[in-house]
Amino acid sequence: MKLTSRLTKMLNIQCPIIQAGMAGSTTPELVAAVSNAGGLGSIGAGYFSADRLEQEIAAVQALTDAPYAVNVFVPSEKTYIPEKVEHMNAWLKPYRRAFHLEEPVVNLGEQQQFEDAIRIIIEKDVPIVSFTFGVPDAKVVERLKAHQIMLIGTATSVEEAIANERAGMDVVIAQGSEAGGHRGAFIETANQYTPLIGTMSLVPQIVDAVSIPVVAAGGIMDSRGLVASMALGAEAIQMGTAFLTTAESGASQLYKDVIIQSKETDSVVTNVFTGKPARGINNTFIETLNQYDGEIPDYPIQNQLTTTLRKAAAQAGDSQWTHLWSGQSPRLAQHVTAQKLIEGIIQQARTLIEA
Amino acid sequence: MKLTSRLTKMLNIQCPIIQAGMAGSTTPELVAAVSNAGGLGSIGAGYFSADRLEQEIAAVQALTDAPYAVNVFVPSEKTYIPEKVEHMNAWLKPYRRAFHLEEPVVNLGEQQQFEDAIRIIIEKDVPIVSFTFGVPDAKVVERLKAHQIMLIGTATSVEEAIANERAGMDVVIAQGSEAGGHRGAFIETANQYTPLIGTMSLVPQIVDAVSIPVVAAGGIMDSRGLVASMALGAEAIQMGTAFLTTAESGASQLYKDVIIQSKETDSVVTNVFTGKPARGINNTFIETLNQYDGEIPDYPIQNQLTTTLRKAAAQAGDSQWTHLWSGQSPRLAQHVTAQKLIEGIIQQARTLIEA
Repeated sequence: MKLTSRLTKMLNIQCPIIQAGMAGSTTPELVAAVSNAGGLGSIGAGYFSADRLEQEIAAVQALTDAPYAVNVFVPSEKTYIPEKVEHMNAWLKPYRRAFHLEEPVVNLGEQQQFEDAIRIIIEKDVPIVSFTFGVPDAKVVERLKAHQIMLIGTATSVEEAIANERAGMDVVIAQGSEAGGHRGAFIETANQYTPLIGTMSLVPQIVDAVSIPVVAAGGIMDSRGLVASMALGAEAIQMGTAFLTTAESGASQLYKDVIIQSKETDSVVTNVFTGKPARGINNTFIETLNQYDGEIPDYPIQNQLTTTLRKAAAQAGDSQWTHLWSGQSPRLAQHVTAQKLIEGIIQQARTLIEA
Repeated sequence: MKLTSRLTKMLNIQCPIIQAGMAGSTTPELVAAVSNAGGLGSIGAGYFSADRLEQEIAAVQALTDAPYAVNVFVPSEKTYIPEKVEHMNAWLKPYRRAFHLEEPVVNLGEQQQFEDAIRIIIEKDVPIVSFTFGVPDAKVVERLKAHQIMLIGTATSVEEAIANERAGMDVVIAQGSEAGGHRGAFIETANQYTPLIGTMSLVPQIVDAVSIPVVAAGGIMDSRGLVASMALGAEAIQMGTAFLTTAESGASQLYKDVIIQSKETDSVVTNVFTGKPARGINNTFIETLNQYDGEIPDYPIQNQLTTTLRKAAAQAGDSQWTHLWSGQSPRLAQHVTAQKLIEGIIQQARTLIEA
């Protein structure tokens, strides 16, 4: 078995390790550290304004000459129902009041934000872009390809992987059910809320269905997960939780500590934080919102309704009222630098293969 | 990487492949074919009477001299509430009538059945026994160990794996969320119905927590899954769905065909068939019972209330009213003999490791 692949050549990286675009928790230092260590760092731009994205790209470019990616959220179908938002606002009122917070103004400019991101990615010569929540339309793909930008899509099912390949993605991430944070799902399935296919099942079935390189994601934290993923036919791995607890990550110490102290059974998949299903450590926020007597507003509306509350709680050191995205392998999380994490994984993977 | 391990030596088998004790779908021919091919065949004795178990063991012993296992269900805590059973019976009445079936008599002799199985296993010199739904009590463990019988337990979480090791199991199966059929869970967790931890996450976290050999289960169907599992630290794999569609399996042609034509998103975890959570292909039975206006009776009561209905439907060629246990990798299922399946996996695994 080998640790280089068609994909490491395509992306011009030394190690088959991609840092997930953890919106809200990436820093230029993390992205650059991963890329400088030979992996692929990703700027988690899902929530960024145009100005913020420009600043982050400039900061990463100042710290590394190696390839890096920008991860963006593809705008989704959503319905804005004023009564639904009012009902949620009324319900959240006492919790907001406890943190002295005002009611937020909902901003539906998701499409504009996405278009700005694509323009900036092209202007700033970003080499690689990854997409979450779907595939961009043909015109966007064409514009990016005209600038030789590599495109990475996300799939939670075989059908979504095929849709990624058809849309012109150069690479597809197979996001298993173990993965922390948002589910990348974008095609509805008949019998489930969102596909939750384990990485062990998802990767080989996607590898068999598409010709483009596949990246394994979900539950992978160390050399064992890397070698296992390569055996399943993946050409690289993507890790989120493993990088979330590194020194360079933007996650608070509180958040990192919670992850490191968590068990594999502590996370649940919930849409109460943002309106889209995501895996995080169960806490009072989730349990309280599970009692909500209405429907949760669509993403990005619910995200905007809860974001100040979650930020205030995090700043107050309260882990019960903020999101704690985590995959199902928190027992394997470590307090290390990103460079040490990558170097350790590669070295141990070589030993494992040769054993 | 190697395909032999401490575990293959302990069990005296040539290949690190265990056929899961798929109650209702194993045959002496399947068990013997797996063991004769160098793996470990398992008699799925979960639903067997004492007489039936004696017959099956004799039949397997006539077909192989290699080691094999008997898989038994550990009796669970249950409550028999007559009103709950009457309510379910009334609700099932029209569906039973469609197949001209009588109301079944509930038999709560699970404990006696288990004790008979242990006695027969000892009397008939069965070399290996595997347990589902928990760990047996200390006296049973002591009796089996006094006869040099190897004990294999099942865990769906780290806590359950530790409980298996403490109870004296020689080996523990890490059953990932991808696995088809019954969940082996036996310890309640705070925030979930039953642990559903993906194999990629579960195996290394269990390997780190126990000293006994770990067997990976859930979503594994081919050489890729075998090598991936060994990389994660497992010393063998257990496969159910992959053996269910083999020529020697006791599953009907209808059942095998459904599995082979299914997608990775087609299965759900449900307790409506037996009263315990199990993964199977979604169908009319599940969707109808999901509309049931009461609580599903505990296992084994619900199993007994629905079993004649499911058997009659299967015999009538109706796949919508019977259980169709399947893991999350049905796209990888094949119509082959058990021997060909095992030989192919081992040969391809060697090629994969050397590539």
